Amino acid sequence: MESNGTHETYEPMTLPAFDEAAKKVKEVTLETKLIPSQLLSDRYSCQVFLKPENMQNTGAYKVRGAYYKISTMSDEERQRGLITASAGNHAQGVAFAAKRYGVKATIVMPTTTPLIKVDRTRSYGAEVVLAGDLYDEAYAKALELAEERGLTFVHPFNDLDVATGQASIAMEIIQELPLVDMIVVPIGGGGLVSGISTLAKALNPRIKVVGVEPAGAACMKASLEAGHVVALPKASTIADGTAVLEPGDKIFPYVQENVDEVVTVRDREVIDAFLDVVETHKMIVEASGLLSVAALKHLDVEGKKVVCVLSGGNMDILTMSTVVQHGLIQRDRIFTVSVLLPDRPGELVKVAESIASCGGNVVRLEHNQFVNPNRNAAVELRVTVESSGTAHKEQILNGIRGLGLDPQLVQAIL
Amino acid sequence: MESNGTHETYEPMTLPAFDEAAKKVKEVTLETKLIPSQLLSDRYSCQVFLKPENMQNTGAYKVRGAYYKISTMSDEERQRGLITASAGNHAQGVAFAAKRYGVKATIVMPTTTPLIKVDRTRSYGAEVVLAGDLYDEAYAKALELAEERGLTFVHPFNDLDVATGQASIAMEIIQELPLVDMIVVPIGGGGLVSGISTLAKALNPRIKVVGVEPAGAACMKASLEAGHVVALPKASTIADGTAVLEPGDKIFPYVQENVDEVVTVRDREVIDAFLDVVETHKMIVEASGLLSVAALKHLDVEGKKVVCVLSGGNMDILTMSTVVQHGLIQRDRIFTVSVLLPDRPGELVKVAESIASCGGNVVRLEHNQFVNPNRNAAVELRVTVESSGTAHKEQILNGIRGLGLDPQLVQAIL
Repeated sequence: MESNGTHETYEPMTLPAFDEAAKKVKEVTLETKLIPSQLLSDRYSCQVFLKPENMQNTGAYKVRGAYYKISTMSDEERQRGLITASAGNHAQGVAFAAKRYGVKATIVMPTTTPLIKVDRTRSYGAEVVLAGDLYDEAYAKALELAEERGLTFVHPFNDLDVATGQASIAMEIIQELPLVDMIVVPIGGGGLVSGISTLAKALNPRIKVVGVEPAGAACMKASLEAGHVVALPKASTIADGTAVLEPGDKIFPYVQENVDEVVTVRDREVIDAFLDVVETHKMIVEASGLLSVAALKHLDVEGKKVVCVLSGGNMDILTMSTVVQHGLIQRDRIFTVSVLLPDRPGELVKVAESIASCGGNVVRLEHNQFVNPNRNAAVELRVTVESSGTAHKEQILNGIRGLGLDPQLVQAIL
Repeated sequence: MESNGTHETYEPMTLPAFDEAAKKVKEVTLETKLIPSQLLSDRYSCQVFLKPENMQNTGAYKVRGAYYKISTMSDEERQRGLITASAGNHAQGVAFAAKRYGVKATIVMPTTTPLIKVDRTRSYGAEVVLAGDLYDEAYAKALELAEERGLTFVHPFNDLDVATGQASIAMEIIQELPLVDMIVVPIGGGGLVSGISTLAKALNPRIKVVGVEPAGAACMKASLEAGHVVALPKASTIADGTAVLEPGDKIFPYVQENVDEVVTVRDREVIDAFLDVVETHKMIVEASGLLSVAALKHLDVEGKKVVCVLSGGNMDILTMSTVVQHGLIQRDRIFTVSVLLPDRPGELVKVAESIASCGGNVVRLEHNQFVNPNRNAAVELRVTVESSGTAHKEQILNGIRGLGLDPQLVQAIL
């Protein structure tokens, strides 16, 4: 069944379609086997497994839906090629899938897209059209070009064929872990969660599917509560890949039907999850991809087998440094303390010795004289210290207090 | 064959022992399947696969040798337990393996070991003894305790049972990729490479095995050239896990016999490899673990199937930030430029506009007035800019030159 588009019996989001999609996408995906997480399992008294789509080709699951979409097109449609608008994972997923299928792809990206993303999308052989300052303008341009050139538009989430392709993740999870109790899935526009939940329920209604949104962009939760698709006025979250204002209306009924629960997580919970996964599993997962891990603390998982889908890993490397820094500060593993010292030789040495004797590692130090005309508190010392956590930080502060000084915590800087 | 120690016929570093070890370690290892690297394959016109032992339990391959070592001990030896000295991956490997085997482990760590490593080793149930400022003192203490308490000392590399256990990596590589032409392996003290090369040659003499050392700690290369084990006076490299002064004398003959070539790589090549692997494969690999990837450019790999062993991923997260920063600077993706401006309103705006119009992203900016009494060059502007690489950097600099200014590159700061 090479071309589904010509099959009159073909229906997306049905078991036969899911089955076919799961086989089809293997032509183009890496095997992302489940990774058991001892850390998270111990913490939540359950068995946590990670589905690492961050390690998928192009660094995200998007290639699945795009590739399957192409397989449902007619030969003639494929001949003409496809088009989409995206500055993110969907751009690379479509470009990669199209190249592997031998189909031409046009990707419309906002003119503000970082050059490196444009280059990477081009490297998969796609034609990149830069248009508009904002995504909406690029989107409009893509629809216009699709009309003009007879291209098939591949929506990033509001497309039942695309969602059927993404559902291959659920098929793989169930094949590898038939006893799975719960699958936790990040939600942006809802394509991924609609596919995963519909397949999971069709195969085994006892599998619970939980969707997770950033608290600052919870359009699906709002829509489910309203009973219909609603648009948020704005989105604000570090999880940029899931910062969507309005879920897809085509996939929405499937989410209503098959998703058991939608929860939200805050940015600081995502940052915590980033540190956990980097330090324990040695993987980079982008903020949106970590929503599933961040949500575990809010879920009833005790004694269950839980799979967290890590949807992607495309985090800009400078952003990564910033997230690491915030995470360390959040966990008291980096802190900055300001101490006023008497203007006498040897005071700096005493503080440095005290910190060292507690095993604190000085990361940065500033010594500013004459901040105060009082010679007993004339010099400000600002020290940024690396510690092993809250208890260790308190121990270091107490050491300084033991010198008769009054350390004040200030905004940490690295 | 539960206890090899009681078998008189048991010989380490033989095919029957390798075969048994490969099965035995599966009780305690995660399956680290080969990851094909499109990036490296394209760059070197070959097929590169990564063996991701950074994602192994405890974040490194060490657990293999330790677990197999325990299996070769007699019941009575196991009853008493084992001991080692280490501040690194070996400590956690031994602690983890012992816990899984239900055997008591004592780990001697230098008193200077970061608390977080001590905690992690304890979390696997090992008794940690802090002794000595330097590794050598901890090592002496461990030998002393071993004698005193009748414990079995597990050397990190100079032990044929341990090396036989590490060789299970080669067995897995050959099972998964029987057509492998070359295996590239980091070298510290030589335990890993001796096991891998001896097994690979015994199974299939046409498989080439290449060892890689940091240029600043190339004790194996020096020893091979001398024809016997020699000690370096000092080691200096960011690859701390392989900063070994003297290879093991027990494993050395196996290296002489079975390793085809030993090459060295410089720290900046390792930093480049770090960026490649983080950005493309979304994995954290420690510097020592990247020696194999960094070596590819020095090897004759064209048209071959090459496996790079990524030996570990335990990189401190602050070190990670520093490596990222150096890597971005090395690649001209971050640079800092100093420009002297006339002391007139609007000059700063012009420079900022020029950088923005070239698509450069300003990361940090300092504006220092009165650096020069000449009012035509009175203000120094220091701008740190994120670019997409060398060509883009030149474009941005030319933009500033187009304003009649003279941008000077200075040491980049983040």
